[in-house]
Amino acid sequence: MISTRLTERFGIRHPIVCAPMAYVTGGALAAAVSHAGGLGVVGGSYAGTLGGEPDLETELARAKSGKFGVGFITWALERAPKVLTKALKHSPVCVFLSFGDPGPFAAEVRDAGAALICQVQFMAHIDMALKAGAAAVVVQGTEAGGHGASRSTFPFVPEAADYLEQHSPETLLLAAGGIVDGRGLAAALMLGADGVVVGTRLWASADAFTPKAHTDKAIGVTGDSTIRTKVLDALRGVPWPREYSFRFLKNKLTDGWADREGEAFRAFGTLSAKYAQARVQNGLDTVAVVCGETVGLLKDRPSAESIVKSMAAQAAGLLRRGGKLKFTSQS
Amino acid sequence: MISTRLTERFGIRHPIVCAPMAYVTGGALAAAVSHAGGLGVVGGSYAGTLGGEPDLETELARAKSGKFGVGFITWALERAPKVLTKALKHSPVCVFLSFGDPGPFAAEVRDAGAALICQVQFMAHIDMALKAGAAAVVVQGTEAGGHGASRSTFPFVPEAADYLEQHSPETLLLAAGGIVDGRGLAAALMLGADGVVVGTRLWASADAFTPKAHTDKAIGVTGDSTIRTKVLDALRGVPWPREYSFRFLKNKLTDGWADREGEAFRAFGTLSAKYAQARVQNGLDTVAVVCGETVGLLKDRPSAESIVKSMAAQAAGLLRRGGKLKFTSQS
Repeated sequence: MISTRLTERFGIRHPIVCAPMAYVTGGALAAAVSHAGGLGVVGGSYAGTLGGEPDLETELARAKSGKFGVGFITWALERAPKVLTKALKHSPVCVFLSFGDPGPFAAEVRDAGAALICQVQFMAHIDMALKAGAAAVVVQGTEAGGHGASRSTFPFVPEAADYLEQHSPETLLLAAGGIVDGRGLAAALMLGADGVVVGTRLWASADAFTPKAHTDKAIGVTGDSTIRTKVLDALRGVPWPREYSFRFLKNKLTDGWADREGEAFRAFGTLSAKYAQARVQNGLDTVAVVCGETVGLLKDRPSAESIVKSMAAQAAGLLRRGGKLKFTSQS
Repeated sequence: MISTRLTERFGIRHPIVCAPMAYVTGGALAAAVSHAGGLGVVGGSYAGTLGGEPDLETELARAKSGKFGVGFITWALERAPKVLTKALKHSPVCVFLSFGDPGPFAAEVRDAGAALICQVQFMAHIDMALKAGAAAVVVQGTEAGGHGASRSTFPFVPEAADYLEQHSPETLLLAAGGIVDGRGLAAALMLGADGVVVGTRLWASADAFTPKAHTDKAIGVTGDSTIRTKVLDALRGVPWPREYSFRFLKNKLTDGWADREGEAFRAFGTLSAKYAQARVQNGLDTVAVVCGETVGLLKDRPSAESIVKSMAAQAAGLLRRGGKLKFTSQS
């Protein structure tokens, strides 16, 4: 057990939050993380606006055996705000919003007694989170799988920590992107975070919705194997704001569109039928296997419980020993 | 003082290496870092092949008041290998090679009694470094300023640590990219590094060649302000291998070429005269202010000595206190 402001705030044992991964984090994964001592956050994905998403009511009901939160892609939730109202009836301890202005939802979240957690990808977006009254700001580094942007976790966390210390010292800071084991948790705490948000490692857990063919492809490759690109959303015509891009395993689709983001945007959406057809024909040569750079550290697909517990134990061990280092007081 | 395998190997007090930044790390900066207890590495840049570089003989002579190393861009050194022979006459403790195959230079470095330090940007390049007999591998994250590639420091370090532990446990591991203060040093050690390579923080030191107008522009902006792009080298016609890109402060040039890397490559070199003219006419709207994402944490331009000493002291404090965390043995 590692006690931080995050564990105290939410009454959890480990400062580990499960990322609300769209199409991946269902109620079973969220519950498993919470039972292991972390905080599970069900992925509300595109709030039902994109289609093919897991039924949120079912997943929230599944998560209810413990503490849980719910997360949404903010710009999608704007198109279906009643989905938030319905989700709040399940009494999540937090609502985790990313990719857009959380302001319009802040009052409803607060009135329902849930904590607002805002994930940001730029320093420039922190003020939006603070204005919305975020209990915690998550800074998401570019190494994360799925949607994100260009900042990297390592320099982003201390910069955000200094900013919050100066402007809103009560706001918690979480690190997302690149955190796969206890080394990453310990490092994030050293950089100034109160806890971490874990995606890819839990994406490859037995409790996630991730298709087996995807984790089979992912386990054993190095972290060099992913790419962050805007091409896919342009091809399929999903209207992501231009500052965000998508990380997944490189495949024949990304090889063919390398250095052609501008061209993909000029064709925005017009290739979506062709893309859908290629998905069916070519499988994982076209379909995105959505994981982050930490894919290079995945060796297996264990239970979420064992992931959370071993991450916490390894971090505690490293912190206790100060990384096995010898110090002298001489500078 | 923090003792690691790096400090023991080189007989230094702090596990902090000054990046051999082209056009930036002269003998004065290298000497200042070494006197402060780190290891200064003079930037041998393009081995004289690009032009306008500081005179290497002069800089090495300046560095000689203490331990020092010398660094080169490997693919450029291939075009002027005698520059290495001359540099080795100054008895550097290490030769730091990045961006290319160090193999052709390994024997000469070893015979001169210098340690070979190889910086890599991909997991796929580590074997090349090991084959060359590297005493240390530096994994450079994309957040670094100047040339680099796409991996991020946070997940890159533990992946490389696991790889080295399995394939070459005697080889040291250093982290580069995103390390600006004691938090970063402590975090890098938690991730499995034996030490760090510091660029941007020392770029903005009183001992660097960095023009004052550049640090004046850099101090006060956030880390959102940089971009990594291949456009600049394509425009100016510098033949960098395609896997590398260049990070610097966004300016009017990068705004104008956003999402147009493919187009810039098709025009490779043909715009170099126009680019040179624009540099003169537009100053920092065109000229690259070359720093990494940690620019958001720069508040001043202190001496390299104070940077190294405060980084080491802050890291030692954080590690000693285990990040001020409370532990219990209960999992």
